[in-house]
Amino acid sequence: MPILNKDMLLCISLAARPSNIGTRFHNFLYDELGLNYVYKAFTTDDIEGAITGVRALGIRGCSVSMPFKEAVIPLVDEIEPSAAAIESINTIVNDGGRLIASNTDYEAVAELLERHHVDPALSVLVRGSGGMAKAVVAAFRGAGFDDVTVLARNAEAGEAIASKYGYRAVTEDPAPGHAVIVNVTPLGMAGADAETLSFSEAHVDAARTVFDVVAYPADTPLIRAAQLRGIPVITGADVIALQAARQFERYTGVTPTRDQVERASAFSRQ
Amino acid sequence: MPILNKDMLLCISLAARPSNIGTRFHNFLYDELGLNYVYKAFTTDDIEGAITGVRALGIRGCSVSMPFKEAVIPLVDEIEPSAAAIESINTIVNDGGRLIASNTDYEAVAELLERHHVDPALSVLVRGSGGMAKAVVAAFRGAGFDDVTVLARNAEAGEAIASKYGYRAVTEDPAPGHAVIVNVTPLGMAGADAETLSFSEAHVDAARTVFDVVAYPADTPLIRAAQLRGIPVITGADVIALQAARQFERYTGVTPTRDQVERASAFSRQ
Repeated sequence: MPILNKDMLLCISLAARPSNIGTRFHNFLYDELGLNYVYKAFTTDDIEGAITGVRALGIRGCSVSMPFKEAVIPLVDEIEPSAAAIESINTIVNDGGRLIASNTDYEAVAELLERHHVDPALSVLVRGSGGMAKAVVAAFRGAGFDDVTVLARNAEAGEAIASKYGYRAVTEDPAPGHAVIVNVTPLGMAGADAETLSFSEAHVDAARTVFDVVAYPADTPLIRAAQLRGIPVITGADVIALQAARQFERYTGVTPTRDQVERASAFSRQ
Repeated sequence: MPILNKDMLLCISLAARPSNIGTRFHNFLYDELGLNYVYKAFTTDDIEGAITGVRALGIRGCSVSMPFKEAVIPLVDEIEPSAAAIESINTIVNDGGRLIASNTDYEAVAELLERHHVDPALSVLVRGSGGMAKAVVAAFRGAGFDDVTVLARNAEAGEAIASKYGYRAVTEDPAPGHAVIVNVTPLGMAGADAETLSFSEAHVDAARTVFDVVAYPADTPLIRAAQLRGIPVITGADVIALQAARQFERYTGVTPTRDQVERASAFSRQ
């Protein structure tokens, strides 16, 4: 890291429970690319005051995590389609005092579907009904998928997400056969559910692409089950790195190479 | 510099025209002492919003420079005597959401008078009537000096400062003979007045201590004239380093050694 100087631009994150990931990812790339920026994670119990501070201090960029993604909607000046599509903001750019909001989770999912050539004609089963599930389902809609089923134990939440994008919701495992299965629940995440396979073996067997949003660890039981079968995967590490790269571009105007993003991602996960 | 992490505490400065000095001074000592802090200078056109941000983001410390030293008075929760004495704040500590204000310029001047064993019975001539002159004059009062004359071209400003602390004001050079002469004007500072001696040769000849608050450069014509004559000096570099050290202690709870302060000061001036 260079010694900080007065002209450095500060980018921050706001989350109830900040992690080191964004701080390490962004600072790694600032250093790698020789940009006069610095990044640091914050928490707050006053989201309105924090955004007032972003404006007043000229903080260049602000990543927004749980539980602030909806709360900041009335606090910004402009909302890009990526955030409007899911009524959820994860990125704010301060453009000379004007706060412009977007959602790079949505963008990252959409871009990964394209990058992995996932055919929009395929049938999709998405498990989960939280904020990230909304971003994922909206991205499938944005990518032109018509046959998407949302599997959620919470019937109301599942129905709300599915119906918003013209899809169907179920509360119990449907018969296997979906070509794309997507886990957007905490199943497989480090902790109590670390060993839980988020879809049945039969669902995995039938899949042609397996997508798990869980990032810690990225090699969840679902991802490992897919890899054992030689099925192409999209991991939570892919999502988190790509969404951070899209934030990075907005904050700095610089597009890192894929290699740089991969090395920043690896560094952020150490 | 260590790679930033989420637990780092941020300290900032707020000034109309930020310099690199504080940023370099504090970050040098954080590094030297292995403290998980980071420091960065900011400017703002919304001082109230900036202080709201200090609270909401949990920014640990905030140095306040021109022109915000009076404007922040109604924005803090507690004002220590050093700031109350001169109705001017240069330091805010955020103690769990409670903002405590002080003035380390005042403290540094008072401490330097003591450190240099400047006898309170001596006669003093202070030139200047700005915000820093107020801190200097108040510090002489706090140190027990009775015979202080304030020399200010602006009669009203000089009279206001002098009378507040029970001293006299003059607008024209008094006869030489003051044992302590103190420059608190920009005379001798880098720029148009760089070559100007802020007191007459006769004033310097009569002095037993010469004190110049100008810090850039610290070897002003006045300081050089005193050194040529073997007269003890207190420089603006001494003031700026000591006031920064007192801020550092408030922000971190750690007292750097004098050697560390000197090396941080030298680094900050590179």
